[in-house]
Amino acid sequence: MTQERARVIKIHDRDNVAIVANAGGLPSGARLPDGTVLLEAVPPSHKVALADLPAGAEVIRYGQVIGKAARPIPRGSWVDESLVLLPEPPALDDLPLDTGHAPALPPLPGYSFDGYRNADGTVGTKNLLGILTSVQCVAGVVNVLARRIREELLPRYPNVDDIVAVNHSYGCGVAINAPGAAVPIRTLQNLARHPNFGGEAMIVGLGCEKLEADRLVPQDERHACAGCGGCGGEGPPVLLLQDEAFRGFGDMMAALMRMAGERLERLNRRRREPCPASDLVAGVQCGGSDAFSGVTANPAVGYAADLIVRAGGTVMFSEVTEVRDAIHLLLPRTADIWVGRALLKEMAWYDRYLAAGGADRSANPAPGNKRGGLANVVEKALGSIAKSGSGPIVDVIGPGERVQKSGLVFAATPASDFVCGTLQLAAGMNLQLFTTGRGTPYGLQMAPVLKVSSSQALSERWSDLVDVDASRIAGGGATIEEVGWEIFRLVLDVASGRKRAAADRLGLYNDLVLFNPGPVT
Amino acid sequence: MTQERARVIKIHDRDNVAIVANAGGLPSGARLPDGTVLLEAVPPSHKVALADLPAGAEVIRYGQVIGKAARPIPRGSWVDESLVLLPEPPALDDLPLDTGHAPALPPLPGYSFDGYRNADGTVGTKNLLGILTSVQCVAGVVNVLARRIREELLPRYPNVDDIVAVNHSYGCGVAINAPGAAVPIRTLQNLARHPNFGGEAMIVGLGCEKLEADRLVPQDERHACAGCGGCGGEGPPVLLLQDEAFRGFGDMMAALMRMAGERLERLNRRRREPCPASDLVAGVQCGGSDAFSGVTANPAVGYAADLIVRAGGTVMFSEVTEVRDAIHLLLPRTADIWVGRALLKEMAWYDRYLAAGGADRSANPAPGNKRGGLANVVEKALGSIAKSGSGPIVDVIGPGERVQKSGLVFAATPASDFVCGTLQLAAGMNLQLFTTGRGTPYGLQMAPVLKVSSSQALSERWSDLVDVDASRIAGGGATIEEVGWEIFRLVLDVASGRKRAAADRLGLYNDLVLFNPGPVT
Repeated sequence: MTQERARVIKIHDRDNVAIVANAGGLPSGARLPDGTVLLEAVPPSHKVALADLPAGAEVIRYGQVIGKAARPIPRGSWVDESLVLLPEPPALDDLPLDTGHAPALPPLPGYSFDGYRNADGTVGTKNLLGILTSVQCVAGVVNVLARRIREELLPRYPNVDDIVAVNHSYGCGVAINAPGAAVPIRTLQNLARHPNFGGEAMIVGLGCEKLEADRLVPQDERHACAGCGGCGGEGPPVLLLQDEAFRGFGDMMAALMRMAGERLERLNRRRREPCPASDLVAGVQCGGSDAFSGVTANPAVGYAADLIVRAGGTVMFSEVTEVRDAIHLLLPRTADIWVGRALLKEMAWYDRYLAAGGADRSANPAPGNKRGGLANVVEKALGSIAKSGSGPIVDVIGPGERVQKSGLVFAATPASDFVCGTLQLAAGMNLQLFTTGRGTPYGLQMAPVLKVSSSQALSERWSDLVDVDASRIAGGGATIEEVGWEIFRLVLDVASGRKRAAADRLGLYNDLVLFNPGPVT
Repeated sequence: MTQERARVIKIHDRDNVAIVANAGGLPSGARLPDGTVLLEAVPPSHKVALADLPAGAEVIRYGQVIGKAARPIPRGSWVDESLVLLPEPPALDDLPLDTGHAPALPPLPGYSFDGYRNADGTVGTKNLLGILTSVQCVAGVVNVLARRIREELLPRYPNVDDIVAVNHSYGCGVAINAPGAAVPIRTLQNLARHPNFGGEAMIVGLGCEKLEADRLVPQDERHACAGCGGCGGEGPPVLLLQDEAFRGFGDMMAALMRMAGERLERLNRRRREPCPASDLVAGVQCGGSDAFSGVTANPAVGYAADLIVRAGGTVMFSEVTEVRDAIHLLLPRTADIWVGRALLKEMAWYDRYLAAGGADRSANPAPGNKRGGLANVVEKALGSIAKSGSGPIVDVIGPGERVQKSGLVFAATPASDFVCGTLQLAAGMNLQLFTTGRGTPYGLQMAPVLKVSSSQALSERWSDLVDVDASRIAGGGATIEEVGWEIFRLVLDVASGRKRAAADRLGLYNDLVLFNPGPVT
């Protein structure tokens, strides 16, 4: 039992619950600053009732209804998830298209980072050889290739950071003409164009797959390369293992190594140059959230998101199921009715997708979220959207599409960390901000990921695995603004290669996972 | 243009089409043995009309209708896929449950192999340390772990073949209570029990994921291990990265390495011993099929399947969409009406699954199949089921379930090579026979895969990538029986570790892919 002063976090004046901020939780009998006496022990980041709530009363956090009391809840009780009944989600049809209420943020000029400028205007934050695949059939060969390149070629090209083999389970054995197939296909097309690949990604296909490999390159480059080397490496970037020129495995590997070598040669000549912060394309995401996430890490990342947007950059927020219940708060922030309609359309698509699979949004949150004090997806959503900051939403893109506009963009994706990460990469993300409360060693090889910890316990335990400790906000050790600026400055340092994210330091990289709403065959 | 004698393969007396067997195809004007003169050039393994077919006439191969003529097709024409209209699939409701027509095969005693016998009665063909994961969040850590084990520990345990990290995209960000969720969950549970892991698989979880890690171990072992080592390695095989005992990444890795070391110690003591061929659990599969597949590689594998069944072993065939159109030929081979009903149930489930995703079986075949001469899924299915040999179907298991009976079993899976391979492994497969016509470098790390080539062109080009050349059957250089026996003997040698499969020799391994019919969230 802790002897320290009882601390709770109440966010909005209307709130009738607050969360326990003491890292060890609070014992029964503890007295809160407002005079409430705990009727039972409450774990850290879990909710306590600040008033007597009759059965059916609205449970209010963030000034919003997160559910109704399942039975009478006396003041001082632990408001456990079982006591909060999930409300109906806002009906999409009834929402007024009353958009344009978020004023533009004031400009923030003068910030820059050192990036790799590409011919298409995008800017890379890493210098990577990308090896895309049109089908999983080639993964075994590509994995052997990646090991050989790393051992035999990479040491000769010191300006190239690494190679990335984008293996995936799509490409064949799938319904390539099903309504959902456009999503994984455009995701692969856009991953091949990722700014950190510098226009030099190579594509390895088999030859008989449904997703024909040359669909991954722009139309005017579509003819396959036999790896003969006759073009001096200026030819199209596609190699098919079934090419009749190859007599066995040795031939394939020789051609692949030649193709990689030519690309490494050119990548090695890339140099960082000063780029305005407006060239940042940041994704924000959360994973393993707890009830602190919505008051520490997410608002701090939201503040940093505002700074990036003010500097002219692009920030994507995502995770449809985690914003669905806060749609009534987001719609007024869309820039105009076209953006508003696009946002509603993505929500409606996902509602139907889940229903077709016999699921709904109650499939979220995860057990760990609940142990972290999040009663349901409404409470999770209210905390989740804090990552988007306060600016107007200027655009909405579908899963796997590429960002077109600067400013705050909603990039519709599932909430699954790796699926969301993959889709944000396809959208052109060159750096990700990732908040976590329970803790995840998440990392992406294609772009730096900065992990922001929401809770004191995690920040202490995982000091080498997280990049920023936002839990100080709950303890009063730092303000949201201060941590937001710290994140923003770290973003510029990491995008410049001056500092490394924890995941890059430790080499912790998750696999990319394509979102395929269609069936496998 | 080839000067060699024109050769075609006609399978059944009723057939009104045959496929060109000459490796270079046949030119216009070539005269077939039956007197048919080609009206146009026909590529190898493509079909030629042996009679004038009026519009709407039945096109017959394998003695079965593979479609109807889209327009009048004169004798000697190339019967290209566009000329064959896809027929309706056999309606499942109308099929008579007239089962039990395949007589039991004669026993074949006296064959054995040297395997690793496990406490649960299963037999391993490799000696592997399995590292299962409950969620993709841990993949980055597990990949670093796998590299460290391979470099630091494995050299000390020469009797252990390798380590296998079973990463996957399931476990969180999914609808864990959706109707389809049972499939990926039982798949992971059964992969953990795979015979080649010798009962020593370790499970790495995060801690807050929806698929709680201890669900991957049998009920009586379900309490998580903090990796303290206090139990001397006899404790439960689950380690959670979020365990509060870990102060950062170094602690996690130390505990994981300790856990792995204890298991490697025990695995290293395993020894091969003579086991009857009845301990074989073989899967058969095809990938990148052509029109030769159904007359060379698939029948040869079918003959070998019969030999394994006659020796008392188990053979699984799979790939629902590729047998769906031959259901009327399979149903009479089911042992009794219970097996027949189970077979129909799996077909009906898949029909519904595809329809829900806006697809149907016409999503198969792939473009490469078509270039290989397969007009549609009916023709593909008729060739595909040849892999199952001629014995009675004694059981049907659902995706991810474990085989229970010896003999020929239908293991319902999608046709996607990696999804099917993963599900056959979960079923307990200790060796796979894989036929290919177009060529794929497919391999599985968990069990040996023997690749059987259907065409002469592929066998010549990929001599180091395929294990058995079945194309000799088309050229008259070997009979189906001879190649079948060759495969059977090779199975016993490879299962014994005396010979290595091409994929193992070259280190070509595809990733496992879970079948998740449910939505992601």
